[in-house]
Amino acid sequence: MLILPLTTPILKDGDDLAALLAAHEKFLEGDIIVISSKAIATVQGARIDLQKIQPSPEAQEWARRSGRSPTFRQAVLDETKRLKGRVVGGSELAMLTEVSPEGLKGTLLVPNAGLDQSNVPDGFAIGWPLDPIASATLLRTRLQESTGKRLAVIVSDSCCRPRRWGVTAFALVACGLQPLTSQIGRKDLFGRPLTMTVEAVADQLATAANAVMGNADQSIPAAIIREYGVALNDFCDWVPGIEPEDDLFKGAF
Amino acid sequence: MLILPLTTPILKDGDDLAALLAAHEKFLEGDIIVISSKAIATVQGARIDLQKIQPSPEAQEWARRSGRSPTFRQAVLDETKRLKGRVVGGSELAMLTEVSPEGLKGTLLVPNAGLDQSNVPDGFAIGWPLDPIASATLLRTRLQESTGKRLAVIVSDSCCRPRRWGVTAFALVACGLQPLTSQIGRKDLFGRPLTMTVEAVADQLATAANAVMGNADQSIPAAIIREYGVALNDFCDWVPGIEPEDDLFKGAF
Repeated sequence: MLILPLTTPILKDGDDLAALLAAHEKFLEGDIIVISSKAIATVQGARIDLQKIQPSPEAQEWARRSGRSPTFRQAVLDETKRLKGRVVGGSELAMLTEVSPEGLKGTLLVPNAGLDQSNVPDGFAIGWPLDPIASATLLRTRLQESTGKRLAVIVSDSCCRPRRWGVTAFALVACGLQPLTSQIGRKDLFGRPLTMTVEAVADQLATAANAVMGNADQSIPAAIIREYGVALNDFCDWVPGIEPEDDLFKGAF
Repeated sequence: MLILPLTTPILKDGDDLAALLAAHEKFLEGDIIVISSKAIATVQGARIDLQKIQPSPEAQEWARRSGRSPTFRQAVLDETKRLKGRVVGGSELAMLTEVSPEGLKGTLLVPNAGLDQSNVPDGFAIGWPLDPIASATLLRTRLQESTGKRLAVIVSDSCCRPRRWGVTAFALVACGLQPLTSQIGRKDLFGRPLTMTVEAVADQLATAANAVMGNADQSIPAAIIREYGVALNDFCDWVPGIEPEDDLFKGAF
């Protein structure tokens, strides 16, 4: 498996993302393009002007407890509401939000409802594209049309996991491949049926890509996964999550 | 970045893991070898004979609540104790354990204290090597001696994350590279200091490798990460975790 960073100029509102990506790399049949949700949101002009936000007392309180400005905290509360979520915790660094965007099976646990103040101009915040599935579908269609190759697109966000330091990633949306591979019916080396029956294909590929994308000033908003050996298809949706009541982690912490 | 699966014959007690790995792939200077903790435990003969275990009433109760045999549940309770941990939750599939092995900063949240019944003969379970740091050090030394190249070793385990389906991975021990890269002082595209200041290098590489290793009958216990562009050094330790009280996820769920 080959993971190639995809460099672009600094992205801005109105940029043609498909053209910029195709200009910097020749795609091959079956390539999987992992792209950061923030890159898509950026070219869509979805950044939030924090100066236009009036912080509520709740946002003031969150700013005191978990850093950043009251206007950023209000933006997180607003985005949490838009994504039909709730605040479930927080530390000095961030709020922890559990969001349930329309159409997602299960929920997503993310810091700050996916909002970030990195890689946007001062005074702004940026989150996910307003409609990540439509965005992924369009990007895939445009890339396939311009290259003549069958491709897949994964929209990723950087994230973290309990008790671990640092940025890893997960897949928000997969378009063109199955995000979870069932291992039901598969056997281990000794012919016993497997007990962990699902492989988190899209999440693993998003993380692998994130290792070359960087989250600083590298200008690498995407990466190509080549020769992974998975069959592409026409799945295009949120990567399904677990309902909270079925989660191994329920009741812990 | 290139990720190459490393195939071996089915591993067994007493096998020379370094020789088996070196026999199947030519290593290059700077290669990072990700190896499953279970592969190391297997050649060390660290598998647990479940027939020799007397289940306690607590284990009987866990078997009723989260599947598998009472003897497997007792093995998990015993391993949790050995790793100075505790059971913090569970579902119908597994127990969720928080372990604090000697020398680890913070704790690790893992299903079943790292024990597994896959890829061991019927009636046995297998977990981590008894001393993962010593094992990684030895494997690195042996591989470097036999190849004449400077290499790094990451010992990985497969795992999962809250609200997400499926198997991903994390790094237990890193030997020969910095497992976390501080981004303090780094700036974003607009020159602003980054707010997420740590990159989970070892975890991301463990996950990337896991994408080609498979957890079924593929006989791929390891993978090579090539051309990642990180400087190797002499760090060799547990990948540090977060103390529970500092964790963003504290109080959630």
